[in-house]
Order: sequence, then C-alpha cells, then structure tokens
Amino acid sequence: MVIETTRSAPSRADWEPRYADRAARLQTSEIRELLKLLEQPDIISFAGGIPDPELFPTDAVRQAYDQSLGDDTRAGRMLQYSISEGDPDLRHWIASHMASKGIDCSAENILITNGSQQALEFLGKLLLSPADTALVTAPTYLGALQAFSASEPSYDLLQWPMGNRSASSYGEAARAAGGAVKLAYVVPDFANPTGETMALEQRRALLSLASELDIPVIEDAAYAALRYDGADIAPLQALDVTATGSIDASRVIHCGTFSKVFTPGLRVGWICASRQIINRLVLIKQASDLNSAAINQAVILHLAETLFDTQVARARQHYRTKRDAMLAALTKHMPDGIQWTKPDGGLFIWLTLPPSIRSADLLQRAVKDASVAFVPGHAFYPDASGTNTMRLSFSLPDVPAIGRGIEALASLVKSAG
Amino acid sequence: MVIETTRSAPSRADWEPRYADRAARLQTSEIRELLKLLEQPDIISFAGGIPDPELFPTDAVRQAYDQSLGDDTRAGRMLQYSISEGDPDLRHWIASHMASKGIDCSAENILITNGSQQALEFLGKLLLSPADTALVTAPTYLGALQAFSASEPSYDLLQWPMGNRSASSYGEAARAAGGAVKLAYVVPDFANPTGETMALEQRRALLSLASELDIPVIEDAAYAALRYDGADIAPLQALDVTATGSIDASRVIHCGTFSKVFTPGLRVGWICASRQIINRLVLIKQASDLNSAAINQAVILHLAETLFDTQVARARQHYRTKRDAMLAALTKHMPDGIQWTKPDGGLFIWLTLPPSIRSADLLQRAVKDASVAFVPGHAFYPDASGTNTMRLSFSLPDVPAIGRGIEALASLVKSAG
Repeated sequence: MVIETTRSAPSRADWEPRYADRAARLQTSEIRELLKLLEQPDIISFAGGIPDPELFPTDAVRQAYDQSLGDDTRAGRMLQYSISEGDPDLRHWIASHMASKGIDCSAENILITNGSQQALEFLGKLLLSPADTALVTAPTYLGALQAFSASEPSYDLLQWPMGNRSASSYGEAARAAGGAVKLAYVVPDFANPTGETMALEQRRALLSLASELDIPVIEDAAYAALRYDGADIAPLQALDVTATGSIDASRVIHCGTFSKVFTPGLRVGWICASRQIINRLVLIKQASDLNSAAINQAVILHLAETLFDTQVARARQHYRTKRDAMLAALTKHMPDGIQWTKPDGGLFIWLTLPPSIRSADLLQRAVKDASVAFVPGHAFYPDASGTNTMRLSFSLPDVPAIGRGIEALASLVKSAG
Repeated sequence: MVIETTRSAPSRADWEPRYADRAARLQTSEIRELLKLLEQPDIISFAGGIPDPELFPTDAVRQAYDQSLGDDTRAGRMLQYSISEGDPDLRHWIASHMASKGIDCSAENILITNGSQQALEFLGKLLLSPADTALVTAPTYLGALQAFSASEPSYDLLQWPMGNRSASSYGEAARAAGGAVKLAYVVPDFANPTGETMALEQRRALLSLASELDIPVIEDAAYAALRYDGADIAPLQALDVTATGSIDASRVIHCGTFSKVFTPGLRVGWICASRQIINRLVLIKQASDLNSAAINQAVILHLAETLFDTQVARARQHYRTKRDAMLAALTKHMPDGIQWTKPDGGLFIWLTLPPSIRSADLLQRAVKDASVAFVPGHAFYPDASGTNTMRLSFSLPDVPAIGRGIEALASLVKSAG
C-alpha cells in the first residue's frame, strides 16, 4: 500500500527557529546539488570530483562479497554488529601501507571511517569548540568546510606558499574571534579544488607554523595515490614522525580513503594518528554510528590485498590521459588572460577568469546552452570570494568529450569577456 | 612490509587537554566493551542486544549483492557516490511500510541513515545546543545517551507511567540548567533496556506533554516488529499524524532500522519525519559522511521486497521461544525478592535485585566463576543510578544455555544476597 503525501496539506509545524545553532550553519552543497545535473544524459560534466566507474573493479568486488558470505560462520560475523575501531585485518593492511610511505605505525593507530568525509567530521567534533579557529587554504575542499562547520568554528587562511604570516598573528586573530587556533587542514597532494601540490619546503614551513601554534595538522591525502608526473613528496605525517621519532608523538592526523583508487560506494576510509587521538575518535565513532559495515571492510581488504598496486597503475594511466587531454584543450581553445593550474596528479584543474566574469553566471549558460557543467570556485572559499574561478574535473568524460566540452566552455568565456 | 609500533616510544604529545568540550563527555560504552567478552567461546552472553546470526538471511543477501553487481551500468551506480537522502526506491518502500502502520507519508519524508544510531546522533545535532534539556526515561537506551551527549545537553527524566510532572516543571528545570527543553526520546515498544511497552494512554499523555512544551518527540522503534504477544499499539507518530492531519505537521520523529529484523551489518536505518526536518537532516548527512553505501541499501531493498513478512514471522517465532525459556528459568531459579519484567516483545528482560546487591560486582563474578555475562543496569541511567539492576538479553544463547545461564546467575544472586 503506497500512500502519497496529501497535496492539500494542513499547516506545517515550523521547527526551523528551534534548531540548534550549528544546524543553521549547514548549507546545501552546490556540488551535491550539481550531482543531480549528471543524470541529464547528454551533459559533459567537469563538475563532480567523482571517480570514473570504468575503473571500478566490479568482478573482484562481486567475488569478494560472495567469499565473505561463503560459509555460515564468516557470514554471521560479516552481517553482525562489529567493533567501532574497524576490521583488525584491514587496519593492519593500512598500517603496512602507511609504513610504505614512511609512516611507521601499527593497527592501533588506525580508525576505519565511512570515507574521508566522516573522518573530517569526527576531527571537527574532536577538536573544535564554537568560535575556535580552523586554519584552511582558500580555496579548500568544500566538504571539509561542511564537516567542520557543524562544530561552528571561525576560519583563518593559510598562505600558499607558506610563511607570509606569523604564528602570533594567527593566534591574535583567533583570540579576537573568541577562541583559539585548534587545527590546520590541508590537501597537500593534487589538492581539491586546485590540483596543486605543496612542495617539500612548504610542508616543512606548515609543520613549523603548527609547532609554533602547538596545533594538530589534518593531512587529507584523498588523491595522493593518483600521481601522473614527478616523484612522490613525503607526506606531512612522514616528515613529522621522522622529526618527533614516533607516530604517537606526531601532531599530524592523516586521512586516507579507498574511494579514489577502488570505489567510493563502499564508504571506506581511515584516520592514521597517535593512539591517544585514535582512542578518543573510537568513542566518537561509537556514538555516531557504532561501526562501519564489516562486509564492506572485508571487500575492501580483499581488493587491497590482491589489487592495490595494479589498480593504482591502471588509474594513473587512465586519468593521466584525461588530464593531458584537458590541458591540451585549454591551451588550444582558451583566450588570452585565462589562467589554469597544471596538476601533477589528482582529478582537478583550477581555472581563473578575468575578474569581470562571474563563473556562477557562466555555469547557468554553460549548462543551458552548451550542456557543460563545472563547479563555480566561490564554493571552495570560506568567505565565498573567488567568484571568477572554477573547478574543472577531468575524471568522468572521455577524451573526445573533454575536447568538445572545453571548446564549448572557451566559446562562452570569449563571449562573456 | 609490516612495522610494529616502536615499543620504547618517545614521549607522546598530550592532546587531551585541548579537545573540544564535547569530546570530554564521550565515555567508553560498557556494552561495546562487553562485546569483546563475547569472543570468549564458552561464555553464555545475556549482554549484547544483538540479533541471533542464525536468523540472518545469508543466501538472499549473497544473491542480492550478486544481482546488484550483475551488469556494468548497475554496478557503476552501486559503487559510485550516491545521493545523501538515500536510495529513492528504498525510501519509497519504507514510506509504504510506514503507511501500513498508520503513518501516511511519502519518500520525501524518509532519510536513510547508518542504522538508528546515526539517526539519533543527527537528531541531537539538529536539536540540542549545549545546556539544552533532553527528556529521557530512566533507564533508557545507552546509545541514545551517547549520541545526544556529543551535543552536550542536560537530561531530565520522563515519568513512566506518564503524567506525574507538569510541563511547566520541566520548563523551569531546563531554564535552571541554562537552556530549554528541546526534545523527548522514548522507545515505546519493548524498550531497550527494560522490555516494557508504553500503553496507548501513556502515548497520548506523552504527546500531550510534548504539545504543551511544544517540542519534538523522537520515537525509537528499533524493536517494534518483534512482538510475541498481544496486539500492536499505534506508534506515537501514527497517533500524532491522525491528530494533526499530516506527517508534515507532526512533532514526532520516527527512527526505524532493518538491524533487528534482517541484519545490523549493512548499517541501514531510517528517519521518518516532516519534510522540513528531513531537508535539514539531509544537510547533516552530507556533512557527516556524504551518503550511505548504495549497494547496501539495494541489498536491504531486495530483502524488504521479497522477505520482510516471512522474516518478521520467523524472528518472532525464534525469539518468542527464547523469551519464554528465560522467563521460565527466572521463575524456576531466582530467589524471592528479585523482580523482572515480562516483555511482550523485543530482546530484553530487566531484572531488579535487592538494593544491597550491586550488579556491577555481580558481573565480575558471573564472568569469572560462571561464564555468564549481562549488562549492569546503571549504564542505562543518565545519572548512573540503578546500581541494583541488570539487563538480560535472550537473543543469542540457545534455549538450554539460557536455562543453564539463568540457573548459574541465580546461584550467584543467592550467595550475594
């Protein structure tokens, strides 16, 4: 029996004025809303930062689910409540993976989360009281702003490159805002949204600033595996563990995810940090949703053990071609005066228009007249500035569509300029 | 390469003093810690309120995963990011299910969550500012206290049966605590931890109190499907929708879950509420973890469409036998002066010892000397009172083990008395 909502509804209760203060800070994500555009079949989407489903290891996923449910004892465990910390074997695999990046740690330093998004939300909850300050770059990952905003912080801006502002100026600004500086958040490799990578000396400068402020640094490594050119740069956490001698003495909290390499659909990410911080985060996980699905963790573990290196190589090859296609199309079609980043990895190129052009206006016309979508850059600024910027993702369209889409976008830019 | 944590670790950074205030309120759940005892193979556990894995529809789950990944287009959708609201078809099924319980609603009134726990945490976030008051019963579901506590409320106690305290006395107490009454939380059917059910007149009295206070009521219906005797009593939300004429005018927020009927392992629950509240909760879901795993939702939908009624009948039969066995064993073995509830459904019996016996002390001896576990009742009280009470779950042990476990427990009670 399906009953639709009465169309001639009586007056609704109005709860809006009675929500907690934090609820008022939550805004609809433009990116999430834009994902709905993707259902338009003919659109060329440079909008969502979502992986190409062509890369999903579907057969291996199917086999892994089947195996996990293969005998009754195992199935009984897979379908039961499980421990909040996450699957011990998966945590062990991740600890080895972190060690391979120069971060000497054990399973006790790892918490499994529902993707990096949950990691960021937990860290906001752990560290930020209302009016405390979070240091972020501008632009920064929109989802981080959303995750932290539930804890009602102020934001102050990290310089990029580092080093133009003193620790005491950050401290004073935070006191003026009514709290203290409680964390710094960065995406050091192939950042969302700019595609830029922090050089080694920038990483050292950030750690030095964090040390002066005595704050934790959240290192969001969502895209770190997707490098197409050049050599890896040491993660912030590796630099700090080397300097302090132990993960348990480190101020860096590293957030990783299987979403970009394997699949975002199983919602498996992790936090690597000192045991003291992990122990506290386990309580936050318990209170938030008890545990992540054991069966999804088992499937991810199977993929990690059997496919990780192969899949990373495959993804790099796949996205490198797309990045090259987008960079070539931008060079070919964009008029003078337009600038864009040349990322060594990740999924994004960041484009800056002349100050007179508002990318949000351009988006309306791009979707309507050219069936092309992107994300207006102001969404990534805590103060909604950057109105003449945009984020272009090359992950989803194929190479010919990337060419056509950039050509169409360039025409719109020319006619707007 | 696996590297264990250095045993001779250097001094750790001490972050504890710098956490947000809310983090200090999170305590380790005794129940979660007790789950670790279950790994002892010979223990008779009356502790966790977890479903019997014998009932898990493993074959159907395996088939459903296989089907979901059966063709590339579907697999691509299943393994991708998905919408924060949850799978539209699953929301539609749930809306029909709610309608069958007298709650006329549409898919737009439904948000998918990672089990009820996430629902409760979201509702705390939405409704409670620090020092606001949440009305709860004493005892109440421990997980609700954990979920709400991240929002730093005060608690005040609902009377059971209702009606002994006036709305104005609750309002005054809340003002004295520094905020206002912002919600009432109840488990009306076969409550965790007592197994008790609110009679119809108690439900009406609670709605009347909530109306006087003009607050939302959170109805946790986790166990509602598991009725072994008697006739269903209308959900609070059904009563309120009838009174107000529309789900969108209702003050009741209904939390449901597939955990107790099918499996808790896929982490799928839901909130049914007015669209205004759901719209705001969708933003909280976005900021918290983007979306619940699409593939797990598809599997649950398959189970719901093909097996729901059969599975409910199977679970009722299975647990009714266990409840009867536990009640019979209590009657046979417990000495005079011990009282316990006689639940019409759910998974729990609540036992009250003489005031001189502390159930926490008894637990130590029960685990050590008799290999029997339960949860000491004080864990379910906001003020940690109820030290002479305990929660007994009959869900996991088989009938002979229930008999042996209760007999052993009764011996310990006699020797403690």
